[in-house]
Amino acid sequence: MSLQNPVFIPGPTNIPEAIRKACDVPTIDHRSPLFATILHPALDGVRKVLKQTRGETFIFPASGTGGWETALSNTLNPGDRVLAARNGMFSHKWIDMCQRFGLQVTQVDVPWGEGLPVAQFEEILREDERGSIKAVLATHNETATGVVSDIAGLRRAMDAAGHGALLLVDGVSSIGSMDFRFDAWGVDVAVTGSQKGFMLPAGLAIVGFSEKAVAASKTATLPRTFWSIDDMRKGYAADAYPYTPSVGLMNGLKLATEMLLAEGLDTVFARHARIAEGVRAAVAAWGMKPCAVSPDLYSNTVTAIRTPEGFNASRIVEHAATRYGMAFGTGLGDVAGKVFRIGHLGSLTDAMALSGIATAEMVMADLGLDITLGSGVAAAQAVYRHGAAAERMAAQ
Amino acid sequence: MSLQNPVFIPGPTNIPEAIRKACDVPTIDHRSPLFATILHPALDGVRKVLKQTRGETFIFPASGTGGWETALSNTLNPGDRVLAARNGMFSHKWIDMCQRFGLQVTQVDVPWGEGLPVAQFEEILREDERGSIKAVLATHNETATGVVSDIAGLRRAMDAAGHGALLLVDGVSSIGSMDFRFDAWGVDVAVTGSQKGFMLPAGLAIVGFSEKAVAASKTATLPRTFWSIDDMRKGYAADAYPYTPSVGLMNGLKLATEMLLAEGLDTVFARHARIAEGVRAAVAAWGMKPCAVSPDLYSNTVTAIRTPEGFNASRIVEHAATRYGMAFGTGLGDVAGKVFRIGHLGSLTDAMALSGIATAEMVMADLGLDITLGSGVAAAQAVYRHGAAAERMAAQ
Amino acid sequence: MSLQNPVFIPGPTNIPEAIRKACDVPTIDHRSPLFATILHPALDGVRKVLKQTRGETFIFPASGTGGWETALSNTLNPGDRVLAARNGMFSHKWIDMCQRFGLQVTQVDVPWGEGLPVAQFEEILREDERGSIKAVLATHNETATGVVSDIAGLRRAMDAAGHGALLLVDGVSSIGSMDFRFDAWGVDVAVTGSQKGFMLPAGLAIVGFSEKAVAASKTATLPRTFWSIDDMRKGYAADAYPYTPSVGLMNGLKLATEMLLAEGLDTVFARHARIAEGVRAAVAAWGMKPCAVSPDLYSNTVTAIRTPEGFNASRIVEHAATRYGMAFGTGLGDVAGKVFRIGHLGSLTDAMALSGIATAEMVMADLGLDITLGSGVAAAQAVYRHGAAAERMAAQ
Amino acid sequence: MSLQNPVFIPGPTNIPEAIRKACDVPTIDHRSPLFATILHPALDGVRKVLKQTRGETFIFPASGTGGWETALSNTLNPGDRVLAARNGMFSHKWIDMCQRFGLQVTQVDVPWGEGLPVAQFEEILREDERGSIKAVLATHNETATGVVSDIAGLRRAMDAAGHGALLLVDGVSSIGSMDFRFDAWGVDVAVTGSQKGFMLPAGLAIVGFSEKAVAASKTATLPRTFWSIDDMRKGYAADAYPYTPSVGLMNGLKLATEMLLAEGLDTVFARHARIAEGVRAAVAAWGMKPCAVSPDLYSNTVTAIRTPEGFNASRIVEHAATRYGMAFGTGLGDVAGKVFRIGHLGSLTDAMALSGIATAEMVMADLGLDITLGSGVAAAQAVYRHGAAAERMAAQ
Repeated sequence: MSLQNPVFIPGPTNIPEAIRKACDVPTIDHRSPLFATILHPALDGVRKVLKQTRGETFIFPASGTGGWETALSNTLNPGDRVLAARNGMFSHKWIDMCQRFGLQVTQVDVPWGEGLPVAQFEEILREDERGSIKAVLATHNETATGVVSDIAGLRRAMDAAGHGALLLVDGVSSIGSMDFRFDAWGVDVAVTGSQKGFMLPAGLAIVGFSEKAVAASKTATLPRTFWSIDDMRKGYAADAYPYTPSVGLMNGLKLATEMLLAEGLDTVFARHARIAEGVRAAVAAWGMKPCAVSPDLYSNTVTAIRTPEGFNASRIVEHAATRYGMAFGTGLGDVAGKVFRIGHLGSLTDAMALSGIATAEMVMADLGLDITLGSGVAAAQAVYRHGAAAERMAAQ
Repeated sequence: MSLQNPVFIPGPTNIPEAIRKACDVPTIDHRSPLFATILHPALDGVRKVLKQTRGETFIFPASGTGGWETALSNTLNPGDRVLAARNGMFSHKWIDMCQRFGLQVTQVDVPWGEGLPVAQFEEILREDERGSIKAVLATHNETATGVVSDIAGLRRAMDAAGHGALLLVDGVSSIGSMDFRFDAWGVDVAVTGSQKGFMLPAGLAIVGFSEKAVAASKTATLPRTFWSIDDMRKGYAADAYPYTPSVGLMNGLKLATEMLLAEGLDTVFARHARIAEGVRAAVAAWGMKPCAVSPDLYSNTVTAIRTPEGFNASRIVEHAATRYGMAFGTGLGDVAGKVFRIGHLGSLTDAMALSGIATAEMVMADLGLDITLGSGVAAAQAVYRHGAAAERMAAQ
Repeated sequence: MSLQNPVFIPGPTNIPEAIRKACDVPTIDHRSPLFATILHPALDGVRKVLKQTRGETFIFPASGTGGWETALSNTLNPGDRVLAARNGMFSHKWIDMCQRFGLQVTQVDVPWGEGLPVAQFEEILREDERGSIKAVLATHNETATGVVSDIAGLRRAMDAAGHGALLLVDGVSSIGSMDFRFDAWGVDVAVTGSQKGFMLPAGLAIVGFSEKAVAASKTATLPRTFWSIDDMRKGYAADAYPYTPSVGLMNGLKLATEMLLAEGLDTVFARHARIAEGVRAAVAAWGMKPCAVSPDLYSNTVTAIRTPEGFNASRIVEHAATRYGMAFGTGLGDVAGKVFRIGHLGSLTDAMALSGIATAEMVMADLGLDITLGSGVAAAQAVYRHGAAAERMAAQ
Repeated sequence: MSLQNPVFIPGPTNIPEAIRKACDVPTIDHRSPLFATILHPALDGVRKVLKQTRGETFIFPASGTGGWETALSNTLNPGDRVLAARNGMFSHKWIDMCQRFGLQVTQVDVPWGEGLPVAQFEEILREDERGSIKAVLATHNETATGVVSDIAGLRRAMDAAGHGALLLVDGVSSIGSMDFRFDAWGVDVAVTGSQKGFMLPAGLAIVGFSEKAVAASKTATLPRTFWSIDDMRKGYAADAYPYTPSVGLMNGLKLATEMLLAEGLDTVFARHARIAEGVRAAVAAWGMKPCAVSPDLYSNTVTAIRTPEGFNASRIVEHAATRYGMAFGTGLGDVAGKVFRIGHLGSLTDAMALSGIATAEMVMADLGLDITLGSGVAAAQAVYRHGAAAERMAAQ
């Protein structure tokens, strides 16, 4: 593995120079006033990226998975019923967590490559006249399949069904890279991590709670200490944490939000869309198809690519690593061996993206797939030549 | 707050240059073979520092507090009874966590400044003939009071009582700085973090499980996902994590254990003892006393210093920060306002320690305490002139 | 300009992560024993890269240009005659320096794109029966044109002519990337810098002196202080410098030589040859030609590419920087506007090289040149797929 | 030697965190527009620190010694006469450089510990009716002895003598730390380096030229290429360098000047004065004397301390390094073995200074000198308690 090549895993992403430096700080007393000048701007910045003006926001010193646990344990009670779809490894894992917490999961199985079945959810919610479903879980962007789901539509469906369940959204691989509207979509808990759109190393679980979710936390009885938003809120009020925070990552997060907001969220999203379009153009040029079954489901942060029947897609990832020192993502769960993934989120230039596409071509050719060298690159180049964001990247 | 002054909080500690660099890495694919070359040496190094040859060791990407949660949730069942002493803020908080998990805590209250009441514990365990106590919780080093407790003695007492409870030990502010013997002391779960003796930023919870504790995890029914050692074990077997690890911190931990073992654990402990002795000599020269009530309880990683009656000790910490840009620790909980703390763990030279002592003198004089300038420094210098470890530090 | 894209200027090169860290050190007393542990391994490492076992080696805290001045001022006297060819901007500049020093230059003008005229030099030297020529200047690799000259052949010619002039060689953009044999080629002074094959930032001028060149320094009367090898030698004997050295860069140089030697010089040279061959394959696919007029002159560290008549080649460099945030080299002097340059030396992977080639294609297409997108990439991919050094790069 | 202790050599200084990061940059094309955004602010910042509004300023990628060579070679002709005093190692070395350049030096020998003999210089200049003296050399701060000379007074003396010689000033260890007024003092060439008041690593020679000095460069015939201000000026006009610049150090210099100007030059000077006063108070408490013979000569950047007759002062430096991992400066030249030096310039807090003083006390006691432990610390503490700049340092 080369430390000089960009990575093309769907997170952690490539880290901009300035963010690496912001994370690498000498020890700062986390109970000193200096820490307050990091904590509050970081929280404020996150809220702007979430488009969250109501409720509360919390940052835990842990991986993003902890955000799922925060969402559940602060809002639900043992035995509560939740509604969730399983359309990829990450939605699968969140459901598994629910079960471990003793929640009853109404699970809707969806072929991997499809999105959250909004109409079916609406139907189920309509039928739940007694309101036994306490929360709806939604994975905004399935990292395993490169499928984006329609959270705004889900909110409309919930409203149409007149159902009062909480809407808990996993935005780990979407927030900061694709449009996400905490307020407008009526999200009750949004979960993300530091290592995707925020371009940081892993180590921060970031969660937004609506006022309704905060209210639920007052009575929720699932056990929690580390993930307690009550403790966290009390800490913030004293410019501190209930335990030792990750000061360097917080400082990096502060800068990351400044960078995203300085670039402009719409510009950031457009940049991701452009890079992703180039990758998809390459996939088409190779005669392949994304795992996502229709264009409206295409993710702008990760593309899972179906390889020919009978070919073990994981060989691509392995060969790329050992032969060219480059990291791609393997297929997981139901699509293991059937897809490989190109992550294209965070801080990425056209030139970086092209090096990934070019390397993927060599790898597939080496492994005997019928790939015309340069074909995917040429298709992506055609897209990138008409993009407009390179100049902005220059500032980093 | 100056970024150039050493910090004298009882963790996170000053970070050696080489460790900062080891933590600050470009993104490495945590599912690539390269990660295995970080993960396993880090685990092996930790085991050597813990003096653990049996059972299993886990590293969670979270603050040390998460280690407490790991210890409880993997070994206990709702309603289980545990025995614990409350002799400082951190033992207090661990008890609080037990209660939130629905455990029944047999709590022994001990004046802050005293150690774990081994004889009283033995008595309680003897009386528990039915074995209702499932775990004994012990804080090896109370960071709030600078008191070290006798874990070896506790193990002897448990054995003498013929009690089969698990021995769960919080070694957050002792492990890596003071002698800790996982095997020899019969520890069942040892908990620590990255930001103390390991000289890293916060962000890793490190736990050792004995075979007995691992066995308990097979039936323990407290809910867990993020903190599940089962998931973690499965991850390690595949050279991976059940979620995204903190690769940079893991790489730093690998180096930290190499540095500790290269220096020699006994030398590391002797260095901490020497630095601590100098600080205590300074305290005596100031006409003050440690919070720890007797010399056998003196911690070699942190000294809590009682200030004169009627004086708010927190002013020292505040004035040191704003006037001299230096960080000390405040008193917490029962001793808030009554003590201030000098952390002296991790990577610290005599010269650094003297700068802290000299600054503390200026601060106390500024605030009207009756301190002879230079007196504490002179007392510490007398200690440090006879130490022998400076040369080793030179290599860092 | 993006800090995330690799650079394709012919030096300073992309800096490997480990070298950046080795250069970024806290202040180290340059008169302490610690400095000796940096200085001598750095010097020894350089000697191995130069293949120099005789004479002396010096490292000046200055840009490589200072190496030229060191070569001249320590070996020559005002009015001395030197023989030099002008076949690019850097040979031109060295001649200019000679003239400023009051040396008489016998200048042979060679079309830019050609190499050093060995036969003509031999003839001139044969004619110089009285030995009025004191030194022959040779630019091993003309960075402006991407032309490598035959130093071994020049030595044979000098010997054949029976001429005793010193052989002063500019190896700035060859040493560490292409084979260079100080001893075997009878080089008297070799000059290089830190920012090319050694993969460091600019700031060190590195020079090797043969015993004959050292002997010449005993009587040479050109003025020198900063560049005095006598002062430098005295410093080294005391593990020090005659003035303040660049400790961080020296520490980086020590590591750089370790890395080059660990990879193996032959492997390093083969890697450069492979990357270069890929670039030249791309150039051919674009229907263009290198500035170097014949394959034996092709440089493995930089390729200067002739653009079509009437097209200002500098636009490529400008557009690449402003549109795609990528740096290429402009044409200089006689070939300004006629060539642009792709630097491919130092630490470079196939994937990085492909990103440069792909970007160059977009740039040229944007500017209206008749380029088939992907064509150069495909040609380079074909070369890189058969290379073998990617695995070694993985370790970095 | 510890990398964690502050250094107390008189340069290179301790480097603030932010400056280390500013110097540690990925490769930036030094011919790209991005470089212009570093170059010009760095030059502008230097001019403000020099208090230079007229003439020109140049930054060479070399050690400060190169600045001396720049001053001489751009303004003088072989055989020219210069006036200089020898009152320390650095004035001695500059004179030596003059002699190597073939200049005639009218050398005034002054006991080391005294300043530049202004009255005697005035007399010599008055006697030079034909104006044969072309330049007066003055060392503003003799780093070897800790003596500051009166440049303003020298200018008045030159004017009083009606002499038109150029005034060349070595401000290497004064500029940025003590008041320096290029314009007001009529300085013709000011020389400094990056590694003192600018708090950077060594590697930049910084020179200011008055219009008169620039005019002299038009006819000066000493040979120069690397140090040519003409070449440098042409480079700057094209946003570039005549050869490869040290981009990282330039970027650091830009930040360093921003930091100095944000703090305020007067505040910076007051901070140095305060720290120095504390060191001198410690020296007095030890019963010792500075090498500088009178208070008006005391340097605020370095104190050379005379040790008792018969004691080899170099043992202090050696013992401090090997026993406590701390760096002080040895005596040089005429005062070798008679003094040791404490450098106290650049970015230094009270706490850091006290660690140096406390360590020096231990060292001297270890070596058998009659030192009361804590005495110097107490004296310095008394000074530092009344200082006011600690808060500002906090921001760094």
